[in-house]
Amino acid sequence: MRVEGVWRRSIEPSADGAVMVLDQTALPHRVAWLRLASVDDAARAIRDMWVRGAPLIGATAAYGIAFAVRDDARPAALAEARARLAATRPTAVNLRWALDEMCAALEPLAPGDRGDAAFARAARICDDDVALCEAIGRHGRALIEAAAARAGDRPVRVLTHCNAGWLATVDWGTATAPIYLAHEAGIPVEVWVDETRPRNQGLLTAWELAQHGVAHTVIADNAGGHLMQHGLVDLCLVGTDRTTRDGDVCNKIGTYLKALAAHDNGVPFYAAVPSPSIDWSIASGAEVPIEERSGDEVRRVAGRAPGGGAPAAIEIVPAATAVANPAFDVTPRRLVTGLVTERGVCAASPEGLRALFPGRAP
Amino acid sequence: MRVEGVWRRSIEPSADGAVMVLDQTALPHRVAWLRLASVDDAARAIRDMWVRGAPLIGATAAYGIAFAVRDDARPAALAEARARLAATRPTAVNLRWALDEMCAALEPLAPGDRGDAAFARAARICDDDVALCEAIGRHGRALIEAAAARAGDRPVRVLTHCNAGWLATVDWGTATAPIYLAHEAGIPVEVWVDETRPRNQGLLTAWELAQHGVAHTVIADNAGGHLMQHGLVDLCLVGTDRTTRDGDVCNKIGTYLKALAAHDNGVPFYAAVPSPSIDWSIASGAEVPIEERSGDEVRRVAGRAPGGGAPAAIEIVPAATAVANPAFDVTPRRLVTGLVTERGVCAASPEGLRALFPGRAP
Repeated sequence: MRVEGVWRRSIEPSADGAVMVLDQTALPHRVAWLRLASVDDAARAIRDMWVRGAPLIGATAAYGIAFAVRDDARPAALAEARARLAATRPTAVNLRWALDEMCAALEPLAPGDRGDAAFARAARICDDDVALCEAIGRHGRALIEAAAARAGDRPVRVLTHCNAGWLATVDWGTATAPIYLAHEAGIPVEVWVDETRPRNQGLLTAWELAQHGVAHTVIADNAGGHLMQHGLVDLCLVGTDRTTRDGDVCNKIGTYLKALAAHDNGVPFYAAVPSPSIDWSIASGAEVPIEERSGDEVRRVAGRAPGGGAPAAIEIVPAATAVANPAFDVTPRRLVTGLVTERGVCAASPEGLRALFPGRAP
Repeated sequence: MRVEGVWRRSIEPSADGAVMVLDQTALPHRVAWLRLASVDDAARAIRDMWVRGAPLIGATAAYGIAFAVRDDARPAALAEARARLAATRPTAVNLRWALDEMCAALEPLAPGDRGDAAFARAARICDDDVALCEAIGRHGRALIEAAAARAGDRPVRVLTHCNAGWLATVDWGTATAPIYLAHEAGIPVEVWVDETRPRNQGLLTAWELAQHGVAHTVIADNAGGHLMQHGLVDLCLVGTDRTTRDGDVCNKIGTYLKALAAHDNGVPFYAAVPSPSIDWSIASGAEVPIEERSGDEVRRVAGRAPGGGAPAAIEIVPAATAVANPAFDVTPRRLVTGLVTERGVCAASPEGLRALFPGRAP
């Protein structure tokens, strides 16, 4: 997608063997590209959420492995880098997938061959993710086209939660790919963007959509149900951090509430699910461990001084007040209209996923 | 309830013929009592949300009428004050109720008698509200006692949204009255407090509960569904700005989402409904006009400098970004387990309300 008028990826190799990523904790208030050049840098970028979103976390972890084996290609170093990166975000199945892919590609090689191979494999993970997101975008665009036909003269209104966008992937995004592709195809589309407390990743989505020229409106997380009651949402389109083989969708906290409202109001609710986010090892979303993150994410809010001033943060809840901060929730498949994968749209069910990915289910 | 260790009301006459209220826009970060001495002061306090919550708005409006007739007791002045106060918050039925009460009490009187009578009537509206909230508290306490019996050794966990507390009434609150009375009766109770974006009134609830010594945990609005899925909520207890004669509950934006989650997880969902908040003139919540408030409420967040510093506000959404800010939503009665009124608990239905308030329905 376009950033400041130029087509860019969210993770780009630099000429000196590092990679550049955006500091997403500073966005949308400050645009800062950061240089990652070591496994330490990559682990910190993932843990501190400079990068976020399953595919971009995977891509960053892949480069983390590449940095590690460039420095020390011995098996123990590879194993240590893998363990270290895996510990940064326990819920992210895509992180483990990327680490598995890297290790499977490198372990058969002689240590001297591993450095170059690792960078090549990491680059291919990025290219594959772009192709995958574009495929999700094509399949999801058809859903938006169908909604446009029903909407008649007015734009299609899509509600999204969190940021499953360009910033969360290498390009296009997952939940945003259908929106960007619909926009590129000239379909009038407007996006309701959930703020997505506590980290306000919706503001990243709003930033992206603005960069690319897609009409959008930011709302408090509380507002979506009311909008659906009043017929102001044509479809919901969210991402996922992990989807089980039975079709339960684990995504940013609050997704479940929007799915309930969509179901209650007959609004189609789709999750964009790249296959690396499917956890074939578990059936029910109840088995997904939910990350409890620091209460400071609820206590503090980042922004800028009023009127577009300098970046600033405030405390809204005193340190003495107890806070709970579960980072994800599980939307049961009965509330999900369909899963938009790179192979097509399927029912959120064991059968639906099995039909698209034969041989993957245990 | 106790504020800084002393039992106080949220609106208190002062010795010099004014009334004192807390500036609720400054809470919880700064405790500032403000003096209201004219209809202008009262209208501004309501419009700018220095005072908020249906009963406290009603009490403030009643004193607004008293200030007006003290200055000018002629019918035209009374009518003008009434129209002016009525325009401050279109959704608040309690505001209109208090204005009707005041005018009905004053219009039969000779102009010379109206000043003192108006202050006496306003004081009685306050006393009546305290008695009403206490009655709601007694009826609601029984629900918490029953939940405590089911909870066994652990505390009862109540989820609430927004602030239907002491700060929203004259004393006790509506949704909080059962909690305070349970706490006073020695029942261990813990409260999940929804932050309640965009204005974060949940932080007012947390401030109140802390003042009174009730255990509580602040959560993002997105978290409640997840907590209910995991059995961590025994009951939901919310307030209402307007409840229709058929039992649809209009309350702060986002209430509907919590009611959906409660229904989906078998968690009882109660609204505390003082009878002045019942709109007998309409049947369906779909008829309630929903106030669209300034987008700046979403764009800006108020708090204090990190570490408990000076009050401060930041901008989280740039001024150029479109924002929508519906302030209320309607929870259909099918999702409401019961209404806790000052006359007892009833089903959220035309029959339930008619049985408790015979003769009030049209």
